[in-house]
Amino acid sequence: MVLTIKKNVEVCVLMKINAENEKKLLLEMLEKLGVNEENAEIVAEATLNADLKGFTSHGLGRFHNYITGIESGNIDPNGEIIIEKETEAIALINGNNNFGQVVAYKSMNMAIEKAKKIGIAAVGTNNSNHFGVTGFYSDLAIKKGIIGFVIANTEPAIAPLGGKEPIIGTNPIAIGIPGDKYIAVDMATSATARGKLLESSRKGEKIPEGLALDGDGNPTTDPDKALKGSILPFGQHKGYSLAFIIEILTGPLVGAAYGKHVTGTATCTKNCNKGDLFVAIDPNKFVGIDEFKKETEKFISELRTSEPKTIVPGDIERMKIDDFRKKGLNIDKSLYKRLSKICDGLDIDINDFIEK
Amino acid sequence: MVLTIKKNVEVCVLMKINAENEKKLLLEMLEKLGVNEENAEIVAEATLNADLKGFTSHGLGRFHNYITGIESGNIDPNGEIIIEKETEAIALINGNNNFGQVVAYKSMNMAIEKAKKIGIAAVGTNNSNHFGVTGFYSDLAIKKGIIGFVIANTEPAIAPLGGKEPIIGTNPIAIGIPGDKYIAVDMATSATARGKLLESSRKGEKIPEGLALDGDGNPTTDPDKALKGSILPFGQHKGYSLAFIIEILTGPLVGAAYGKHVTGTATCTKNCNKGDLFVAIDPNKFVGIDEFKKETEKFISELRTSEPKTIVPGDIERMKIDDFRKKGLNIDKSLYKRLSKICDGLDIDINDFIEK
Repeated sequence: MVLTIKKNVEVCVLMKINAENEKKLLLEMLEKLGVNEENAEIVAEATLNADLKGFTSHGLGRFHNYITGIESGNIDPNGEIIIEKETEAIALINGNNNFGQVVAYKSMNMAIEKAKKIGIAAVGTNNSNHFGVTGFYSDLAIKKGIIGFVIANTEPAIAPLGGKEPIIGTNPIAIGIPGDKYIAVDMATSATARGKLLESSRKGEKIPEGLALDGDGNPTTDPDKALKGSILPFGQHKGYSLAFIIEILTGPLVGAAYGKHVTGTATCTKNCNKGDLFVAIDPNKFVGIDEFKKETEKFISELRTSEPKTIVPGDIERMKIDDFRKKGLNIDKSLYKRLSKICDGLDIDINDFIEK
Repeated sequence: MVLTIKKNVEVCVLMKINAENEKKLLLEMLEKLGVNEENAEIVAEATLNADLKGFTSHGLGRFHNYITGIESGNIDPNGEIIIEKETEAIALINGNNNFGQVVAYKSMNMAIEKAKKIGIAAVGTNNSNHFGVTGFYSDLAIKKGIIGFVIANTEPAIAPLGGKEPIIGTNPIAIGIPGDKYIAVDMATSATARGKLLESSRKGEKIPEGLALDGDGNPTTDPDKALKGSILPFGQHKGYSLAFIIEILTGPLVGAAYGKHVTGTATCTKNCNKGDLFVAIDPNKFVGIDEFKKETEKFISELRTSEPKTIVPGDIERMKIDDFRKKGLNIDKSLYKRLSKICDGLDIDINDFIEK
């Protein structure tokens, strides 16, 4: 409210939301949208998790997409999740357009339960939606002493090696390793994100070399040319190979779309037809969880002796989570306006959740 | 023989071996070394496969290592492979110092058979040896309509992110996708190979930027400084994260050594204590193999429409295999001398196999 009354000082108003309030706000919005309690809890947790880890593009700032999704029918919060195929070690899931978070949560948990019995399991999904931050689902595994592995495809962004049209997604991969400290990888197989190109374009800045091609397939540092061209994979031909494999394992293998046919991952204005694959491995069926944790931690402690300062995958997320817990999430003017509009429509007072 | 008689023209003598003769020579050497027929066939096929694909450092040129291994007892061709743990979806294998190729071949086939029954399976190994080229084992899967996935750790070469001592291996990853054409990835997670640094050092050439650090952790283009320092992972922090995860999945998970403790992968002068993980996925348990192949091939044909010339993972290996089949493998003077010495010791006439 301060924002609308004191227009001249709005740039000085620092708005924040803490983790507890973000969760409450998300749950209230989801409830008002008619999402049942169980599914609302999953979507809220996944969304908060993205903000906690600093992936703000997948957090509260993305929520308006879900409204679009529900209103357009591309997200069906009551879509019945169907197991199309199943063995003791695998399942193929039709998400029936439910929230990507709900389909992914249930699929990963199914993989975890199967892995606990038999050692390894894989669950693939189709007819799902964007599920937020990939690492949220591998984290589900590590909380249960299981190694979690998640891949997904997305709308095309990367040109194939030797080509110039974007045909392969930014195809993320997340891997979680159970241990006393957080050990996890969560990354796109693209060299940068489309959002970063947009940001550089807005700011009139060049982008670093090695990130993108223009529409003719030539390297460019001009974000506007890159937006009309393609993003490069990370790590040249090696990263390209991984993005390519992910496209196959989350497209053809699981009955989902692939390559240039993938829609509905960036926004919810179109039906989402991408796929995911969740794999769980139980160390108890190999060396035993205690032995596994002990040796993994010995390995990491030996890594940390390397000077000047070794970074172990998961360190940065842990720091970001600590930072959020201490300071809360900054809500900028544009996000505040967007959330206010949503809240007004749902008869929620946004200011009950925001600190100023 | 020409080589020893006409010393003055030895540089002009072009020696070659064709695929059939390479296999025969390998089998004869292995037989004379007391390796049983079944295991000799596996080692010979794996070794030929490396040369066929152009990974000559893992082919005939590496064979002297196996002699060292057998003589030192680090390779025991009669080592009994023991299944230490087993479920319908996983196994943990103690290779008992048998040939890495034999342990890996049997482990991958075990994963394939399990996956055919249940959809996915993982077999981990310890007490094995260097197994040659990683993709040979994912190829075993694709010949049976199965997706194959192989990872292994190696002696340390890569420094952790923010560190300077090599503590992580070059940790290869190979993935094979069943299809009418060869679709496969086979790559190290390091930005370059130690062998390439040695070659540049011999030739007095600089190495490209972004491949290695000197002993103080600073980027270097001097191969000699790099050899005293560390190799960088491919793709910066993302490639590092993958090399790190492979170290855990092929070390602590399978009861093998990891990080700075790994020995015996570069040569066979020390006991080899690295580990491997073989994963097999059966598309028949997901969408069905016909549907999977059809959609994968549609995806690839769409990739190939991207100008000027798309490269699909597996294309380069296919070209190299065709090239070898047409032209044979060049045997340089140093390899000829090395092989001659081995053959003399085994009462084999090397010249029965070589074309001049």
